[in-house]
Amino acid sequence: MAKFEVNILGCGSATPTLRHQPTSQVIDHRDRLFMVDCGEGAQLQMRRQRLKFSRLNHIFISHLHGDHCLGLTGLLSTLALHEKGSAVTLHMFPEGADYFKRALGFFCGDTPYKIHFNVIPHGYTGIVYEDDSLSVEAFPLYHRIACSGYIFREKPKARHIRPDMVDFYKVPVREMGRIRAGADFVAPDGTVVDNVRLTSPAEPALSYAFCSDTMFDERVAKAVEGVDLLYHEATYDDSCAHNARKRGHSTAREAGRIARMAGVGRLVLGHFSKRYLTEESLLREAMEEFPDVIVANEGMKIKLL
Amino acid sequence: MAKFEVNILGCGSATPTLRHQPTSQVIDHRDRLFMVDCGEGAQLQMRRQRLKFSRLNHIFISHLHGDHCLGLTGLLSTLALHEKGSAVTLHMFPEGADYFKRALGFFCGDTPYKIHFNVIPHGYTGIVYEDDSLSVEAFPLYHRIACSGYIFREKPKARHIRPDMVDFYKVPVREMGRIRAGADFVAPDGTVVDNVRLTSPAEPALSYAFCSDTMFDERVAKAVEGVDLLYHEATYDDSCAHNARKRGHSTAREAGRIARMAGVGRLVLGHFSKRYLTEESLLREAMEEFPDVIVANEGMKIKLL
Repeated sequence: MAKFEVNILGCGSATPTLRHQPTSQVIDHRDRLFMVDCGEGAQLQMRRQRLKFSRLNHIFISHLHGDHCLGLTGLLSTLALHEKGSAVTLHMFPEGADYFKRALGFFCGDTPYKIHFNVIPHGYTGIVYEDDSLSVEAFPLYHRIACSGYIFREKPKARHIRPDMVDFYKVPVREMGRIRAGADFVAPDGTVVDNVRLTSPAEPALSYAFCSDTMFDERVAKAVEGVDLLYHEATYDDSCAHNARKRGHSTAREAGRIARMAGVGRLVLGHFSKRYLTEESLLREAMEEFPDVIVANEGMKIKLL
Repeated sequence: MAKFEVNILGCGSATPTLRHQPTSQVIDHRDRLFMVDCGEGAQLQMRRQRLKFSRLNHIFISHLHGDHCLGLTGLLSTLALHEKGSAVTLHMFPEGADYFKRALGFFCGDTPYKIHFNVIPHGYTGIVYEDDSLSVEAFPLYHRIACSGYIFREKPKARHIRPDMVDFYKVPVREMGRIRAGADFVAPDGTVVDNVRLTSPAEPALSYAFCSDTMFDERVAKAVEGVDLLYHEATYDDSCAHNARKRGHSTAREAGRIARMAGVGRLVLGHFSKRYLTEESLLREAMEEFPDVIVANEGMKIKLL
């Protein structure tokens, strides 16, 4: 199974505390690292979690609240000191790009690597990054200010060649690419060998959705429909639902409801208010809506299945 | 003895690592907290070291390199969430004030406390803060960019009244303030009682100098002459003296030399390059120049004596 993991660098809200760091995650897809959000301290969490700076080339920012991006300038300064050779692309809204261009000019004047900005319009839905095995889509969240979620979606994978069968049918090596992609084999005598005789099924293409800060909204369920793993903020429990309303956040129960409505595989809760000394009530209430819930914690590595 | 302590929040250089945080200190003078420099993570160190946000009203920034100020926006955001009532004054150079005004406008739009900027001109020598028991003086350091050191100097303290003697001479209560300040007592019959008969000496007025980033320069020794405690950066050991030259930093030996030339009480070393896994060589080389050396570490509290 190709590596596809979500590393939780921070899952607190608003401000770093001794229990939780502000929001940041690193998605490791086949040893390529993608960061989503970058709260203060994210660079130190990367070190703690042994995630290599040299493998990080894309950073996606959900919105311009400090607890989701104040670690970015420091992280990019540190990358510069590591004489990182390649480029980093920052995916964010126009106002973020304006702000960070200035910040980087001020603090990271002469980075040895290129910094690109991929400016995402407010409310944008669609692909913002793509490589040969993965795409990243943005979609709107519903918070106090413009906010974007991101879906990491693997592309359909190649089928597995069955060595015994390709030997038997004497399939030439040059045909293997096409056959992995699903084509039938036409033998020199014109016989057509059905692909399913030559291959076993590909591993499933998995998907991960990240919903940093949002109030409960059915459009979110629609956007993340069917993903294998959903991270959804769960700042409050039922007893503070009024705070969730007021501040454009969700309760854990609402996160569970979105997971159920969207028919996702598993749900990860995060962005916990610092009022909670344990996340027990959040877990319990989410599980009343949806059975398969993970409570995020710093240092956690969640493998997509 | 009135409280006068230096709390080391971070004593690494350039970038946070698992061994050291970037530069930040909190000086606690009679329960008023003064921060000098504010590298990323300083707010979390305050929590770890149980330093109260509510007591922090002045922050002094030495220069505009990221490892000395990238924690400031996050710290000020957190103060806002703590519904801090009073004001915070930021003491820094003009370019820093410009930068942070914008950053605070962006991330801390509606703080419930006032933020004042005390803009310090480049190269300024003189008092930048003063209250009834303490003054803070700026003085130039010699780094790659404009950089300011700070001296925290207690004002002369009141002498101690000797209860037995003021009873004996029947000194009225209304005279006590003048006598503590050093005045003689003139009895109703005209007899003059010398102040030294009525009082015992005041505690010494102590002083602390902070030299964040600087190359070796005799003018620094002159500026910090006679302070009780000197923090001086010591980024490198002798074997990397060429790096110190190139990057506008000091070796530990040079820090020791400044301490000796300035005739200070004790020397604290900090701003350690991340190349050192222990600070042994730094300590040894500094002590070849000056006997009383402390190696800073996160969480350390140094009492002025």
